[in-house]
Amino acid sequence: MEATILPLLATEILIPVAAVVGIVFALAQWLLVSKVKLTPGKTGSSKDGVSDFLIEEEEGLNDHNVVVKCAEIQNAISEGKNLLIWASGFRATSFLFTEYQYVGIFMVAFAVLIFLFLGSVEGFSTKSQPCTYGKDKYCKPALANAVFSTVAFLLGAITSLVSGFLGMKIATYANARTTLEARKGVGKAFITAFRSGAVMGFLLAANGLVVLYIAINLFKLYYGDDWEGLFESITGYGLGGSSMALFGRVGGGIYTKAADVGADLVGKVERNIPEDDPRNPAVIADNVGDNVGDIAGMGSDLFGSYAESSCAALVVASISSFGVNLDFTAMCYPLLISSMGIIVCLITTLFATDFFEIKAVEEIEPALKKQLIISTALMTIGIAIVTWVALPSSFTIFNFGEQKQVKNWQLFFCVAIGLWAGLVIGFVTEYYTSNAYSPVQDVADSCRTGAATNVIFGLALGYKSVIIPIFAIAISIFVSFSLAAMYGIAVAALGMLSTIATGLAIDAYGPISDNAGGIAEMAGMSHRIRERTDALDAAGNTTAAIGKGFAIGSAALVSLALFGAFVSRAAISTVDVLTPKVFIGLIVGAMLPYWFSAMTMKSVGSAALKMVEEVRRQFNNIPGIMEGTARPDYATCVKISTDASIKEMIPPGALVMLTPLIVGTLFGVETLSGVLAGSLVSGVQIAISASNTGGAWDNAKKYIEVSSCAIGSGAGASEHARTLGPKGSDPHKAAVIGDTIGDPLKDTSGPSLNILIKLMAVESLVFAPFFATHGGLLFKIFN
Amino acid sequence: MEATILPLLATEILIPVAAVVGIVFALAQWLLVSKVKLTPGKTGSSKDGVSDFLIEEEEGLNDHNVVVKCAEIQNAISEGKNLLIWASGFRATSFLFTEYQYVGIFMVAFAVLIFLFLGSVEGFSTKSQPCTYGKDKYCKPALANAVFSTVAFLLGAITSLVSGFLGMKIATYANARTTLEARKGVGKAFITAFRSGAVMGFLLAANGLVVLYIAINLFKLYYGDDWEGLFESITGYGLGGSSMALFGRVGGGIYTKAADVGADLVGKVERNIPEDDPRNPAVIADNVGDNVGDIAGMGSDLFGSYAESSCAALVVASISSFGVNLDFTAMCYPLLISSMGIIVCLITTLFATDFFEIKAVEEIEPALKKQLIISTALMTIGIAIVTWVALPSSFTIFNFGEQKQVKNWQLFFCVAIGLWAGLVIGFVTEYYTSNAYSPVQDVADSCRTGAATNVIFGLALGYKSVIIPIFAIAISIFVSFSLAAMYGIAVAALGMLSTIATGLAIDAYGPISDNAGGIAEMAGMSHRIRERTDALDAAGNTTAAIGKGFAIGSAALVSLALFGAFVSRAAISTVDVLTPKVFIGLIVGAMLPYWFSAMTMKSVGSAALKMVEEVRRQFNNIPGIMEGTARPDYATCVKISTDASIKEMIPPGALVMLTPLIVGTLFGVETLSGVLAGSLVSGVQIAISASNTGGAWDNAKKYIEVSSCAIGSGAGASEHARTLGPKGSDPHKAAVIGDTIGDPLKDTSGPSLNILIKLMAVESLVFAPFFATHGGLLFKIFN
Repeated sequence: MEATILPLLATEILIPVAAVVGIVFALAQWLLVSKVKLTPGKTGSSKDGVSDFLIEEEEGLNDHNVVVKCAEIQNAISEGKNLLIWASGFRATSFLFTEYQYVGIFMVAFAVLIFLFLGSVEGFSTKSQPCTYGKDKYCKPALANAVFSTVAFLLGAITSLVSGFLGMKIATYANARTTLEARKGVGKAFITAFRSGAVMGFLLAANGLVVLYIAINLFKLYYGDDWEGLFESITGYGLGGSSMALFGRVGGGIYTKAADVGADLVGKVERNIPEDDPRNPAVIADNVGDNVGDIAGMGSDLFGSYAESSCAALVVASISSFGVNLDFTAMCYPLLISSMGIIVCLITTLFATDFFEIKAVEEIEPALKKQLIISTALMTIGIAIVTWVALPSSFTIFNFGEQKQVKNWQLFFCVAIGLWAGLVIGFVTEYYTSNAYSPVQDVADSCRTGAATNVIFGLALGYKSVIIPIFAIAISIFVSFSLAAMYGIAVAALGMLSTIATGLAIDAYGPISDNAGGIAEMAGMSHRIRERTDALDAAGNTTAAIGKGFAIGSAALVSLALFGAFVSRAAISTVDVLTPKVFIGLIVGAMLPYWFSAMTMKSVGSAALKMVEEVRRQFNNIPGIMEGTARPDYATCVKISTDASIKEMIPPGALVMLTPLIVGTLFGVETLSGVLAGSLVSGVQIAISASNTGGAWDNAKKYIEVSSCAIGSGAGASEHARTLGPKGSDPHKAAVIGDTIGDPLKDTSGPSLNILIKLMAVESLVFAPFFATHGGLLFKIFN
Repeated sequence: MEATILPLLATEILIPVAAVVGIVFALAQWLLVSKVKLTPGKTGSSKDGVSDFLIEEEEGLNDHNVVVKCAEIQNAISEGKNLLIWASGFRATSFLFTEYQYVGIFMVAFAVLIFLFLGSVEGFSTKSQPCTYGKDKYCKPALANAVFSTVAFLLGAITSLVSGFLGMKIATYANARTTLEARKGVGKAFITAFRSGAVMGFLLAANGLVVLYIAINLFKLYYGDDWEGLFESITGYGLGGSSMALFGRVGGGIYTKAADVGADLVGKVERNIPEDDPRNPAVIADNVGDNVGDIAGMGSDLFGSYAESSCAALVVASISSFGVNLDFTAMCYPLLISSMGIIVCLITTLFATDFFEIKAVEEIEPALKKQLIISTALMTIGIAIVTWVALPSSFTIFNFGEQKQVKNWQLFFCVAIGLWAGLVIGFVTEYYTSNAYSPVQDVADSCRTGAATNVIFGLALGYKSVIIPIFAIAISIFVSFSLAAMYGIAVAALGMLSTIATGLAIDAYGPISDNAGGIAEMAGMSHRIRERTDALDAAGNTTAAIGKGFAIGSAALVSLALFGAFVSRAAISTVDVLTPKVFIGLIVGAMLPYWFSAMTMKSVGSAALKMVEEVRRQFNNIPGIMEGTARPDYATCVKISTDASIKEMIPPGALVMLTPLIVGTLFGVETLSGVLAGSLVSGVQIAISASNTGGAWDNAKKYIEVSSCAIGSGAGASEHARTLGPKGSDPHKAAVIGDTIGDPLKDTSGPSLNILIKLMAVESLVFAPFFATHGGLLFKIFN
């Protein structure tokens, strides 16, 4: 066995150093964002503030009032979220507090379940057992696996929760600041929004890395040389991360879309008041929701993917030559890739914030796209370096019962193809969801003949947009699978997620800009500023779709890697479609995403109906609300969203969490394999098409709206778009209907499906020893 | 080897006798329908006609005029279709004539392809080759397989074409007659519509059986004892049937929905004139479309399923003990089941037409449901009898390289479970699409808050409606697979299709009633009559959905059986998901239904846009059209639908027909297996959800509409429905949008997906010898 170039000590140092660099960078960005002052007193008194006032707001609005109003709205949104930690004195209505309470109970219950199931594998025996890779050696007992898996699960859950929470705090912190910066010009606003996104991206990437690294080192104190047991236990980390993400996505998604749909249906459609108008009682719930659903949900989701792909790679490596030969540097290859990713993304971020400056609205989207390209190009070199220094030139990989010889350059290709497939998926997503290209323009055009054709064209667009991403995923699977079996798939997923910091930054940028626009509207800022935030938001819709594309693509690869690890761990060597056990699993698995989507869509629909009734009631019963003289009752709307999301996230959550347990226990590992494969290949399609359909409708609406703004300012809209507008025209009304339908598709059911496919796979992996020994009860009874 | 109870001679006689009985029964039904006279002169002069006039029309309309107008409309619809055969003298605009021309060219080209591909397997050698089941025997050469497969293909295509054409002729013949009978009461109208459906059902079932039977006997003259070669060639029959069905479904679906969507968008939404109003220029195209798409398409589709499941069973049986021991009676088991099905359905039909009488609107749906229950119950006994007399008590079935011992009672369970699964699917479909139950009522209720919530609820309903059908399919697959391997699946599919005559009768009943209502509206008949035809139509919507449920369920089973036969014939014994070749096939296969749907949805959307523009143009440019004084230019609208459907059916058709050829040739049989499994498990979900979503929207709209009618007549609508109506209210407008979106889902992309999954499987089966010898070029080059 050849040694790696990178010595052990260097590995031990480099990983935490990279994580610390990421955290420091994130804090630095935060510091820069915080320089924008929200309190008018302080800003007014500073010299810079005064001069700013002179430049910024040209249209005669009272600046002092605007800043006060921004701060006020910021506080109203914060009522919903920010005060969680310090809120003991405040009323406990805040959504996350409630959500985390429920999820906390679930987490504890599930942790007990993990312990009991895994402990029962060897009857809670404390005796050591023979190892898988060599029957002559003795490894730690199943009970240790139960204990450490449970610990890792809780660790993952807490890290995921913290990731989501931090992201949300940053986003709410950044919203009003972005709005204020928009007075200075689109470039300043862009940088503020993007920096805030970067804070989240880097904190999350560094956090995920460092917690995993510490956990591995602590677990090693007990496990010693039994790396198989060590890394099997570590998979609990991925399960914890993903199950938190599930509730975050589903709960947050229902929350935000109930509010959004409800607000739009009464406000925009019936009362003809603009989006985010403060007269709308659901407007605060809508803004809270953007942060709860899109930011916190996305953060937890991508953290989950990251944790799972690392765990999948580690568990496969632990029974390959790295693990058997105790080569820690090579074993840490996935973590080193992530460390390199942080450094690469750091450099990439500087391109957006420091090396170049955005001067016009048209430069926003190209700047965000450049981020993707630069990070991918740099990361390719980064991967080559890591592969060269951290891997021996040749090694063996576990491949369903046999060992496969792999060269280090082959592994480079596995990681790189995942990385580039991510870029392809990102660009295809952009093409189908940005209103700069013909697909969305065609959808906008179809609004001419009403909402029905808009929906038909939108659905067709979503279906069509799966083609290239699926080919990209298929090719990366084929190449990485052929080169390095399941380890190849796992590192391909890791490659796709290696630029996660940049991906998250441009993704979080979206809802921040969206809310900045909302605050501008609510604060009654000038038309011109609203136009700027709208332009930021339109680019944000596209990047949000790109982010979802990444999340889905990586989820597909990750869950295949986890599936492979599960199959290895459950000691089955083939999953033959031509056996009835597997085939019924396959077809039922392919059905699960539909079942899940039915639940989440219906939940959003029902909650939205309640919201609509409440908003209508307020409009009818509170006098002066339409004139702006009376304050709407925002809290009741927040409560409707909160109650709905807490109540309605349980059934879909239970479906995902219980299916692997039930199938594994009653039908055994073959049927479970079928279920995993079926839900993977079916879910990824619905997830992509739902996200893109929703994104396209949203931007088709924006396309028509921008056109009507442009009649005044004379820029930014094509001749074609102008024939469709202005706001309030029949085509625009049709576009609003499409946008509303797209809301639950793109923000609730679509992105939750990633988690469905990943979570079922990682759960199966964690419980694999139990299923392998005690599973398949039903068949055992009948045979 | 034990002999069967039924002697060979009896088998040889019974099958054709059953077919002849079916044909005679169909003709008798036709005779009964034709007794309703369309020409007023003749009816008026007959004694019965005069007395009829006195009873029927109570509201003072001039009967003579009504009858003349009905006949006139009938002729206008016929311009589009009926005159095909005798139309040499007429202008060649008729849709089918054009469609068949194009399809004819394709058929010939594809026939040549089959011959070349299959002939090349052994290099067009005329030498005999060793048999699969015994290497010591000699079987017919591959060239013979090429020739006979080509012949069988053409035979299947022509039979499918004739089936679809006959169905359409019957339907157009019945439309106006149903309308006229509606004057006498709902019972009479129901019987006319149902009888006409029965004509189609029995002709098609009998036709399919007799052609297959004759083909087998003729091919046997050449093949002699080489049954393996004989039945392999026969599979071409299924391929021919299905490829015609594909073009029928896609072309017809685009035709009908372009017209329907276009007519609704301008007529109902913009001009506020009722559905089927003769002032609408697209109304004739819409009516033509109902027959072209729903009747002819459905006929070809179910004929294809029937032919394929028979072929799948036969080809598996030919390498099992039946074939090896040359036991013709047992070999003909699938055909005997179908023969029994004709007899059972004949008895069942009498329950609807003769044993009971419909007296009120509420009895229509139960009567149709009773048809399903009676036929299923009787058929269970029928299957038991056939199994007892036609099968030896024990035999062996080919099961991927090994032989499996099967008892005859086990095979009974296989057929019966398919049959009953069909009933379950039918009832679940009814539950989710009939407005008598809460799912559709909830969707209708969501129209209160506009089109967006209607669409969200409708999509959720469709997703939810897949759950039970998938479990039903999974259970039947598991049971029949476990009992009798792939032969079990094939006969389960056959079981589901054994009551095809009844299924088709209640299915064809739908569009006939729909058109009858259209004619009543166009002829300006009284409100009361329109109410009757509407009630017939509402039940028809549900039964159409049930029919689609059957079509999809059977397609799933059939394509799995074909898939199994393909795998056997391609000599692979496992399809392991854990190999990269198979997995990429699986994920790409799962994507194909989305690609296909994207094409068909977009086609309908684009064609509808054109139609809308034309209809608007006519309304604006032809003076007097809204007043009814000027005749709209129906022909131009018909031409738009015709051109769109011909042009737009080519890309989706090519996708389905070329994918197996390309994948098999370039990537080989493993990847192709993956593609088949993937498209099967993914396609069946989209197909079910699309059909049911569309059906639910349609009936939600009807639910609101009936409520508004009922304000006058005071019956048939609940308190709830009344709060949503009347026609023209905001909820009703929202419901119309949902209905329009549902049109392409339920009548174009949804039902075409059945054919996609079946057709790719049967095509792979036919080309299996070629793929097995020459396939996988790409991997051969790289390895």
